[in-house]
Amino acid sequence: MDSDSTPPCAPSWGEYSLQHVRESAEAFSAEREWEQFHTPRNLLLALVGEVGELAELFQWKGDAGCGPGLPGWSDAEREHLGEEMSDVLIYLIRLADRCGVSLAEAVRLKFEKNALKYPAEHARGSAAKYTQLAVSEPKTNS
Amino acid sequence: MDSDSTPPCAPSWGEYSLQHVRESAEAFSAEREWEQFHTPRNLLLALVGEVGELAELFQWKGDAGCGPGLPGWSDAEREHLGEEMSDVLIYLIRLADRCGVSLAEAVRLKFEKNALKYPAEHARGSAAKYTQLAVSEPKTNS
Amino acid sequence: MDSDSTPPCAPSWGEYSLQHVRESAEAFSAEREWEQFHTPRNLLLALVGEVGELAELFQWKGDAGCGPGLPGWSDAEREHLGEEMSDVLIYLIRLADRCGVSLAEAVRLKFEKNALKYPAEHARGSAAKYTQLAVSEPKTNS
Amino acid sequence: MDSDSTPPCAPSWGEYSLQHVRESAEAFSAEREWEQFHTPRNLLLALVGEVGELAELFQWKGDAGCGPGLPGWSDAEREHLGEEMSDVLIYLIRLADRCGVSLAEAVRLKFEKNALKYPAEHARGSAAKYTQLAVSEPKTNS
Repeated sequence: MDSDSTPPCAPSWGEYSLQHVRESAEAFSAEREWEQFHTPRNLLLALVGEVGELAELFQWKGDAGCGPGLPGWSDAEREHLGEEMSDVLIYLIRLADRCGVSLAEAVRLKFEKNALKYPAEHARGSAAKYTQLAVSEPKTNS
Repeated sequence: MDSDSTPPCAPSWGEYSLQHVRESAEAFSAEREWEQFHTPRNLLLALVGEVGELAELFQWKGDAGCGPGLPGWSDAEREHLGEEMSDVLIYLIRLADRCGVSLAEAVRLKFEKNALKYPAEHARGSAAKYTQLAVSEPKTNS
Repeated sequence: MDSDSTPPCAPSWGEYSLQHVRESAEAFSAEREWEQFHTPRNLLLALVGEVGELAELFQWKGDAGCGPGLPGWSDAEREHLGEEMSDVLIYLIRLADRCGVSLAEAVRLKFEKNALKYPAEHARGSAAKYTQLAVSEPKTNS
Repeated sequence: MDSDSTPPCAPSWGEYSLQHVRESAEAFSAEREWEQFHTPRNLLLALVGEVGELAELFQWKGDAGCGPGLPGWSDAEREHLGEEMSDVLIYLIRLADRCGVSLAEAVRLKFEKNALKYPAEHARGSAAKYTQLAVSEPKTNS
């Protein structure tokens, strides 16, 4: 962002932080005096609305029309998809912010917790919920 | 991240990138051989499930019990909230990744588009959808 | 329905059966050769989409703008609301039908089960989940 | 089911009315003094929560594991599915009731409206949204 050669508005996945989204959403809201509307439950319902729009893009295609990488989707469909995903992300981060939750810290802790709930050796190749994983006893020498 | 004094596992909002979440989710999945389950529509339904769990935390409280900053919520409730938000975030980013969408690029474009759809001078203090904003004619000298 | 005096198209809540909705949805689909699209997961995603549209009607109003009976909502808003609720209902019933589930039987059993999970004397005035209800010991003569 | 005297509590799809569900939900709520919690937005969030639980039942199965009639699902899974669908139905009807919407009347109108939006001759075999249906010009004699 701060070097001469870096284009100012072409972040890769890697350069774009949760904080960046949080600050952009906050500034966008403040400029429009939308704080009054951005209560936690209003934002939550807005999030639900955007998830609904995301679902609509996938609803009639079947799994066959939605393989990894979405082969067969047009550029217009991909762009629309990116927009709906962005709306979900923005409302989620805005919701966290307005709830006083650091989503970055929370997601870091969640990965740690998930690693304990789903040990790789037990969860491998299984879609079972962690409460139903067949956890074998650790082998001991006796 | 790169200085001696920065704790390696205490990211603020600002240091945690979308790419970091993307890579963590991908590694977590790969270690468990979950790629086979992580098709776009499976992940979308998992996202819907997590949004449902998020909604459950707010459902009986009313707006009165969910003010900005969530005063009155216990530490346990806040922790639970952060976990559900994290689940939504992780599935959303994983979904984008498996769809071949750069969510970071998409969200940057979305902010640009929103700025055009909701000019601050017209949208100020209004919750109207952009299609219903009373956009006054640009002033011209006649 | 079959008497001279009954208007043919003015069912009250009471006269309209789940079966009626199920049959109407099935006929509507069959006439348009939509069976091919009406797989369980496609219908589920369509349901999610409609729930999102329902949420959008409530998202910026706050609880204050959504009191019981929705005082202050315009006729147009009420009509729109009824349409979105109908979409959710139709997709839900269509989903049940395509899954081979008798929703009428299922809902009857659910009411029975709920009565056991939430005994009136314990659940009165509490929004606690059944697993957290403070169930007092039955009184015994000792 | 098969005796002359039909048991009073074994409705088929056909005998169970929306009004029946509405009244049962209302009575259940009144006995527990839950009216105070059953505001429109609380019920809407509860509905979202139940839709999330419904989605969880389908999330990792792929379309291949969710064919029409759900072959391969166990009795326990089917029962669970019926329960989650019932929860969605009950909250939806309760929501309509608390909003002052006659869902029976609304759904009847919706079927009429859909018939106009999706004329069978144009919509046949197409999953396109009504706004994108290729409506051919009516044939005229020239």
